[in-house]
Amino acid sequence: MDNNHTKNSWSYRTPGIPDHQFIRGRVPMSKEEVRAVTIAKLRLKKDSIIYDIGAGTGSLTIEAALQAQGGRVYAVERQLEGIKLIARNISKFGLANIELIHGEAPEALNDLPPADRVIIGGSGGRFKEIFTLLDRDLLCPQGRVVINAITLDTLTEVYQLLKRSNYQYEFCQLAITKGSKLAGYELLKATNPVYIITVQKYS
Amino acid sequence: MDNNHTKNSWSYRTPGIPDHQFIRGRVPMSKEEVRAVTIAKLRLKKDSIIYDIGAGTGSLTIEAALQAQGGRVYAVERQLEGIKLIARNISKFGLANIELIHGEAPEALNDLPPADRVIIGGSGGRFKEIFTLLDRDLLCPQGRVVINAITLDTLTEVYQLLKRSNYQYEFCQLAITKGSKLAGYELLKATNPVYIITVQKYS
Amino acid sequence: MDNNHTKNSWSYRTPGIPDHQFIRGRVPMSKEEVRAVTIAKLRLKKDSIIYDIGAGTGSLTIEAALQAQGGRVYAVERQLEGIKLIARNISKFGLANIELIHGEAPEALNDLPPADRVIIGGSGGRFKEIFTLLDRDLLCPQGRVVINAITLDTLTEVYQLLKRSNYQYEFCQLAITKGSKLAGYELLKATNPVYIITVQKYS
Amino acid sequence: MDNNHTKNSWSYRTPGIPDHQFIRGRVPMSKEEVRAVTIAKLRLKKDSIIYDIGAGTGSLTIEAALQAQGGRVYAVERQLEGIKLIARNISKFGLANIELIHGEAPEALNDLPPADRVIIGGSGGRFKEIFTLLDRDLLCPQGRVVINAITLDTLTEVYQLLKRSNYQYEFCQLAITKGSKLAGYELLKATNPVYIITVQKYS
Repeated sequence: MDNNHTKNSWSYRTPGIPDHQFIRGRVPMSKEEVRAVTIAKLRLKKDSIIYDIGAGTGSLTIEAALQAQGGRVYAVERQLEGIKLIARNISKFGLANIELIHGEAPEALNDLPPADRVIIGGSGGRFKEIFTLLDRDLLCPQGRVVINAITLDTLTEVYQLLKRSNYQYEFCQLAITKGSKLAGYELLKATNPVYIITVQKYS
Repeated sequence: MDNNHTKNSWSYRTPGIPDHQFIRGRVPMSKEEVRAVTIAKLRLKKDSIIYDIGAGTGSLTIEAALQAQGGRVYAVERQLEGIKLIARNISKFGLANIELIHGEAPEALNDLPPADRVIIGGSGGRFKEIFTLLDRDLLCPQGRVVINAITLDTLTEVYQLLKRSNYQYEFCQLAITKGSKLAGYELLKATNPVYIITVQKYS
Repeated sequence: MDNNHTKNSWSYRTPGIPDHQFIRGRVPMSKEEVRAVTIAKLRLKKDSIIYDIGAGTGSLTIEAALQAQGGRVYAVERQLEGIKLIARNISKFGLANIELIHGEAPEALNDLPPADRVIIGGSGGRFKEIFTLLDRDLLCPQGRVVINAITLDTLTEVYQLLKRSNYQYEFCQLAITKGSKLAGYELLKATNPVYIITVQKYS
Repeated sequence: MDNNHTKNSWSYRTPGIPDHQFIRGRVPMSKEEVRAVTIAKLRLKKDSIIYDIGAGTGSLTIEAALQAQGGRVYAVERQLEGIKLIARNISKFGLANIELIHGEAPEALNDLPPADRVIIGGSGGRFKEIFTLLDRDLLCPQGRVVINAITLDTLTEVYQLLKRSNYQYEFCQLAITKGSKLAGYELLKATNPVYIITVQKYS
């Protein structure tokens, strides 16, 4: 049976938890539609081993852990504020298959078991090092990496590396506009676009 | 255990099946990112009873049925070509929890059991009649309806009806741009935007 | 000769004045890219007679007046705060071909000379009345009306009226995302989309 | 007086000529809204000297030449097919202030007079060389360069160069969606997004 933990505040099987259900700090958080597409691109199995690098508030960590309840999510975050937020969200959603790692990738990844899936929400400008380590040592065959980029810097760094690699990849920009009530009108409000970049390893 | 049907060609737990895995005709089909967000907005449970009205190729039918394997999806489609396509996709994905209904909503809904969730991908200009019937007779308390609109006509019809209703609703426009290889370059190609409109019933 | 007024702070021939050059209040203002496309859709001549209905800060009034220096812009605004802002912007840009009208359309249009071009940035929910008056009495043959809609309310009201009319029209949604420096990175920031709706009268 | 050439098929003062007014080949062409914003970002004067590098069908050449009728546009294009198209469009719009250059930048720029404004629509993967030459020898103080990028390759190449330069720059992504009649409905059709990148030289 799915999601039957006593403290679990998400009783649905599908991803895309509403933003307001997360405890949030000043850290930017992936919006629910971005999380829904990111989780879709990851193609999770019930027993997937997942890294969430630059986990922020942990919203993607939680979404991934809910899908892979027989697997494990390693949430890596270098900011102490983020670590505390993720811990509170883990507790709120009552999940037992998440391990919190306070540290910076790639170093923080060294002692982890190999990953089936990797989410990169933040790389602190060290994407190349992280990706190189994943590629060489940590990403399982048939593994997938999904990168969420919100700056031209990350987009550029990722594209320059991938186009010279042998990986198969996909760039997808997601632009979400939502209706927002304002004085009786339904105003169209844009949220910042996110490039969701998916990388597939074959062997 | 999830998805262990012998003929099932989707071995992941998460929605967002790649477009190319569906058998497609000339009928327009929801893109994988649109399906991922639509399924997220539906908030499915394992045992949800779902209508897919204007099911087209059945891509959302299949996605919903994979999530609600203990429930049931009623796929309503008025075009015979669509019905045949959906049947082929059901067979390809090896699903047993889908019922095909060749007919037009709202009439075709009359004999169905009440629904927890409703997808409206096409309403043949009869959205008001369909929504009125769902509201009065067929949508369970706490039920959700998700409408995918790709024309100003549907967007306008739905908004005009909802703003005068007591329902809680959300309008979300999804604009997807994907990288596409062209002569060694990664061209940014837009897909047509979709308004994903979610309606929540409370009692 | 173009733009040689002594106080004129815009020395270029082309529209799309940077946002920061306008004196702004709390009134929302069309962004420079939206103004560039709106002015393009208007197809102005040097001697065009233009109404700007719901002129707000007057940014489109100024842009139109700079293009039609041998013509005239009638800026209609019902809020006193807006009228004061427009007056200050007219003074800043040193323009003499603008007439300020403090009042509400359609009533405020009654004494105006016929228009070649009409901008509707705000209609206070009275679009139908305004359009009907323009159509019957005030819009010249070959005239054009450009409506900027930022709410679903205006979008659907305009579409419902136009689809039943004999006018030729075009709906164009403009979504602008701009790079914004943040801690050394170039963050992609979205601005709210605008529907720019162009109506062409033929006779 | 504006635009009073006998053969001129554009009788308006403002940019944003409808796409269908250009003679088009198989070469991709900037859409009218993209041209309107590009011309706005250029900030043209009546006597501007302009290069249009990678001029394609010449649609931006024509728009620029109409604004700068006392100046001159140098349209550089390496494909003979493009050169022929531009020549036909120049003739159609009856413009005398355009010089056609069949060749490849940066070499083709060597004999040109210095430019106030530069449009780069295509750089054949040689953006760095072109920009270096403009910067060193050809771009006047207070000059502006506007680059239209439709691939991740150009976007990332331009960003990498600019972030290490002393230039002031702006990245702006323009995503246009237009209504399109289909079987009595108004379908929302996306066009591919364009990054419009503006560079300002100060001294």
